[in-house]
Amino acid sequence: MPSENPQPAFVLVRPQMGENIGAAARAMWNFGLDRLRIVAPRDGWPNPKAVAMSSGAGRLLDEAQLCDDLPDALSDCTFVFATTARQRGLTKPVMSPEAAMQLAAEKIAAGEKIAVLFGPERAGLENEDIAKANAIISVPVNPEYASLNLGQCVLLVAYEWMRRVGDVVHESTDLGKGDWATGQEVEKLVEHYEERLEEAGFFYPPAKAANMKLNLRNLWSRMRMTRADVQMLHGIMRQMVRWKERGGE
Amino acid sequence: MPSENPQPAFVLVRPQMGENIGAAARAMWNFGLDRLRIVAPRDGWPNPKAVAMSSGAGRLLDEAQLCDDLPDALSDCTFVFATTARQRGLTKPVMSPEAAMQLAAEKIAAGEKIAVLFGPERAGLENEDIAKANAIISVPVNPEYASLNLGQCVLLVAYEWMRRVGDVVHESTDLGKGDWATGQEVEKLVEHYEERLEEAGFFYPPAKAANMKLNLRNLWSRMRMTRADVQMLHGIMRQMVRWKERGGE
Repeated sequence: MPSENPQPAFVLVRPQMGENIGAAARAMWNFGLDRLRIVAPRDGWPNPKAVAMSSGAGRLLDEAQLCDDLPDALSDCTFVFATTARQRGLTKPVMSPEAAMQLAAEKIAAGEKIAVLFGPERAGLENEDIAKANAIISVPVNPEYASLNLGQCVLLVAYEWMRRVGDVVHESTDLGKGDWATGQEVEKLVEHYEERLEEAGFFYPPAKAANMKLNLRNLWSRMRMTRADVQMLHGIMRQMVRWKERGGE
Repeated sequence: MPSENPQPAFVLVRPQMGENIGAAARAMWNFGLDRLRIVAPRDGWPNPKAVAMSSGAGRLLDEAQLCDDLPDALSDCTFVFATTARQRGLTKPVMSPEAAMQLAAEKIAAGEKIAVLFGPERAGLENEDIAKANAIISVPVNPEYASLNLGQCVLLVAYEWMRRVGDVVHESTDLGKGDWATGQEVEKLVEHYEERLEEAGFFYPPAKAANMKLNLRNLWSRMRMTRADVQMLHGIMRQMVRWKERGGE
């Protein structure tokens, strides 16, 4: 069963190798996309090599819409993007994957049906295919070296879709089992270390002592510690003191 | 010769298959990155399968820094990112590729040396590797299906680097050989069509004529035409008139 999320259909136009069809399905499903259309695959359909390559995303192949030609694949679409590496002088907007998926998300939210076309491995989309598109998606690759394959191109566009509509958390801290030490706990650690290090003669010469203490306090606060970290640091100091005391016996 | 652009080093930690090392090199160079470090590759080094897979990016393998262990690979680095799919309760910042490459760009601009770690194919980075990192990069994949391989993970992080520092044009229109029609040229086209269609009896009933003309004018302006488009549309109308006149003979 396809997912309920409104999303663009990805259309593989005359794909050649089954492995690449399977890889495209995996790339899509990695980013939550599962509307695949396949136009005139060279080696027929179903394709066992596609199935073998699609591990875990085989459902997309089972549910893929197989089409004889591109107009058939686009019959319900109101806006079509074509991916292409080459500039072609076709007087259409050329968009980054980011801008294209932003536009796709807006159009889908407004009830439109969107398709993204991906060409055959060797030569990419024909001019006649591109003439059916409203805009071009061009991945900003190194001008000295552009060697993206079909699966990689699908992956990057699908990733941009996830970036636009997914709930991407840009930064979080995964606390796991612990939790953060409070200011009071950090303060007690500071006092413990200052007291013992004072006894140990660490803050020397006396003229520099205040600054050394400040540096140490800055270190503790910069580290952001869990309660377990604080306990461990207390334990280290206690153990050093015990060691010293054993040595003194 | 490596490129001059300041950039993060990508560190493959104990990679297993040569093919994946070659694919990682290609993925990097697609986005202009060419500082590869390889820690303890399972099948030794150099690896002919890596070379075979790296077509066009073989220079990255020739120039790769081969390291015995991870501390060796990180000896000059001031900030280290580790890529991982799994959450591990390690109390480090977990960042999206986007946020991580933003931070990397800022740190590099401030003169820091940055590394990004990628784990072995099967199991990913060990906790001991991750303990050497300052932050985690986690790609926001479909929680029901996360099957990114090593090359894909390298591709996405490299793509985000390009997005941050490359001169990405989000939308442009490639005019090719033509150039845009001027307002005056469009106006003449409007007049030509209105005049002929009037003769042809297209604007009927008369009560709706003004609105029909407005709709047609809106269509022309919405289409954004090149000079060649305008000439073609003039030609279509002239030909229809000729055809009509032949029919009337």
